[in-house]
Amino acid sequence: MKVNINGETKTVLAVWYEDNKVKLIDQRKIPDEISIIELKNSNDVYNAIRDMAVRGAPAIGVTAAYGLAMAKKNNEDMEKAVELIRSSRPTAYDLFKAIDYMKKNNFSESAARRYALEITERSKKIGEYGNELIKNGDRILTHCNAGALAVVDWGTAIAPMRIAKDSGKNIFVYVDETRPRLQGARLTAWELAQEGIDHSIIADNAAGYFMKKKDVNLVIVGADRIAANGDFANKIGTYEKAVLAKVNNIPFYVAAPGSTFDFNIKSGDEIPIEERDENEVLSINGKNIGPSQSHARNPAFDVTPNEYVTAFITEYGIFKPNELEKLRSLISKDLFMR
Amino acid sequence: MKVNINGETKTVLAVWYEDNKVKLIDQRKIPDEISIIELKNSNDVYNAIRDMAVRGAPAIGVTAAYGLAMAKKNNEDMEKAVELIRSSRPTAYDLFKAIDYMKKNNFSESAARRYALEITERSKKIGEYGNELIKNGDRILTHCNAGALAVVDWGTAIAPMRIAKDSGKNIFVYVDETRPRLQGARLTAWELAQEGIDHSIIADNAAGYFMKKKDVNLVIVGADRIAANGDFANKIGTYEKAVLAKVNNIPFYVAAPGSTFDFNIKSGDEIPIEERDENEVLSINGKNIGPSQSHARNPAFDVTPNEYVTAFITEYGIFKPNELEKLRSLISKDLFMR
Repeated sequence: MKVNINGETKTVLAVWYEDNKVKLIDQRKIPDEISIIELKNSNDVYNAIRDMAVRGAPAIGVTAAYGLAMAKKNNEDMEKAVELIRSSRPTAYDLFKAIDYMKKNNFSESAARRYALEITERSKKIGEYGNELIKNGDRILTHCNAGALAVVDWGTAIAPMRIAKDSGKNIFVYVDETRPRLQGARLTAWELAQEGIDHSIIADNAAGYFMKKKDVNLVIVGADRIAANGDFANKIGTYEKAVLAKVNNIPFYVAAPGSTFDFNIKSGDEIPIEERDENEVLSINGKNIGPSQSHARNPAFDVTPNEYVTAFITEYGIFKPNELEKLRSLISKDLFMR
Repeated sequence: MKVNINGETKTVLAVWYEDNKVKLIDQRKIPDEISIIELKNSNDVYNAIRDMAVRGAPAIGVTAAYGLAMAKKNNEDMEKAVELIRSSRPTAYDLFKAIDYMKKNNFSESAARRYALEITERSKKIGEYGNELIKNGDRILTHCNAGALAVVDWGTAIAPMRIAKDSGKNIFVYVDETRPRLQGARLTAWELAQEGIDHSIIADNAAGYFMKKKDVNLVIVGADRIAANGDFANKIGTYEKAVLAKVNNIPFYVAAPGSTFDFNIKSGDEIPIEERDENEVLSINGKNIGPSQSHARNPAFDVTPNEYVTAFITEYGIFKPNELEKLRSLISKDLFMR
């Protein structure tokens, strides 16, 4: 992705492997600063994923792949390294997919590099397919961050917007701020600003208002795990926006690579939902928002039933929820995905 | 309402009139401190309403009523005072209702006091009717603040919860934090804590999650203006929660006094929606949440169509949207409301 550093535009990745270390942009510090973290062992990888220095299902997968290659080189106990990294977060499927891939490929550095490259190229492909859905003048709503930071480059939900913009289409993006962690306001708005894509941040509460006014004509979001029937988990609030899109007859697309599809589970009921620390809700920028006596609930994801999904945008093309058998068959023939 | 000040429980009002001044709790400072503001002329009243030191449709109405009585005593130009106060905020109907009432009653102090007393007693009545809808063990969702702070005492949406609790029912309240100004986390959670009502603050994004899980079995919100057909304006995000309640078959009630019903307008399309400063979205506790290049949109209210309302809880009883003609007739016979 393009990043403006001290007035110079540079191209950087969200995660990469260098000098036998996993390096990544600390996403907790964006947009205030671009700070690089270096992970030196599987424990560092575990902490970076758990504490959300890196987040976004595909980027978590790539971090795990590089992390396991590094652990192997460092002669770590690989069974322990796998178990530790596997336990870092429960919902995103890419994490488990990447671990399986690395196991099959003996945790080699070249396998990790291929995993990262495949995911990046597949994201661009998602962008190209998604771009076909975007018309000049479209006003698109997105939730959370499914941009380059959530992958390695390109993004999933954001990739079609980048390609639409590059191909000369005039688009506008409503960015849900995405409480509690504000990934929309902090990360998506920052990426869109870097790419010169016109946008406005809105409170999550305002998404329905703009949809009802028909000031949004397309919704594109990412996903953390997609079940065989098309139910999918994504950042908390996605379900709300999906229901509102349907009620207002606005197409609702989910952009995700094959690595996010978990055909081992029949429906979203089987997706574990992470509940995170209440302080992510109760405190913003280190200051309490509510009274000291009050507690909070903080589910990090929700599951949107397949009936709310117009279609999935993948590197294999665009599939309606009732066409996922076809996708499953394509994935099973894809050497990388097996 | 009960307020714990330095370990002592006191009963205070949101707005009152004393020493020829309008006094109110500065709602922007809760829950950090209980700070009293004194308004000395109509300009102070205008600023307090516009800058949201006082908010909540009934409390705005009472502030305007007291403010006009004060202006009259101070020999202000009453035409100017009325126009100034009328222009402070555009959406809440109580403001205009209170101004009309004071005009008819020659801006007397006794009329203002009666207005405040009526609104308070009517809120308690709303609480009594609303309490009939609450069962032991109910888990109730509310949005924004429609508590004592939004009225003078009791509240509208919160009044039934207070009376349910006082009558020994065991209830639990999910409090939408209500971005951008966080009135749920700051004000509603604080009021519930003062009243000893069990609750959790949630990100607005999580309301749908808990509704879908059937962990919410009742929604009660307030209103800023209700049209003749039952469409109503309330804090931004209310429309989203109403749609999600309907999709999940959860009863959705709107609690409001007669002074919030505007039978002069046929539908919600005629309700003006205030759009406030973008910095209410872009900055929290004085710190920017997004990149400096990004802008925000900040509609303060949305309109929920009547099809999403189970019924309105008023001081006259409970009315479905298609029964509002009956309510209109009761209001027309109510000496206070004419």
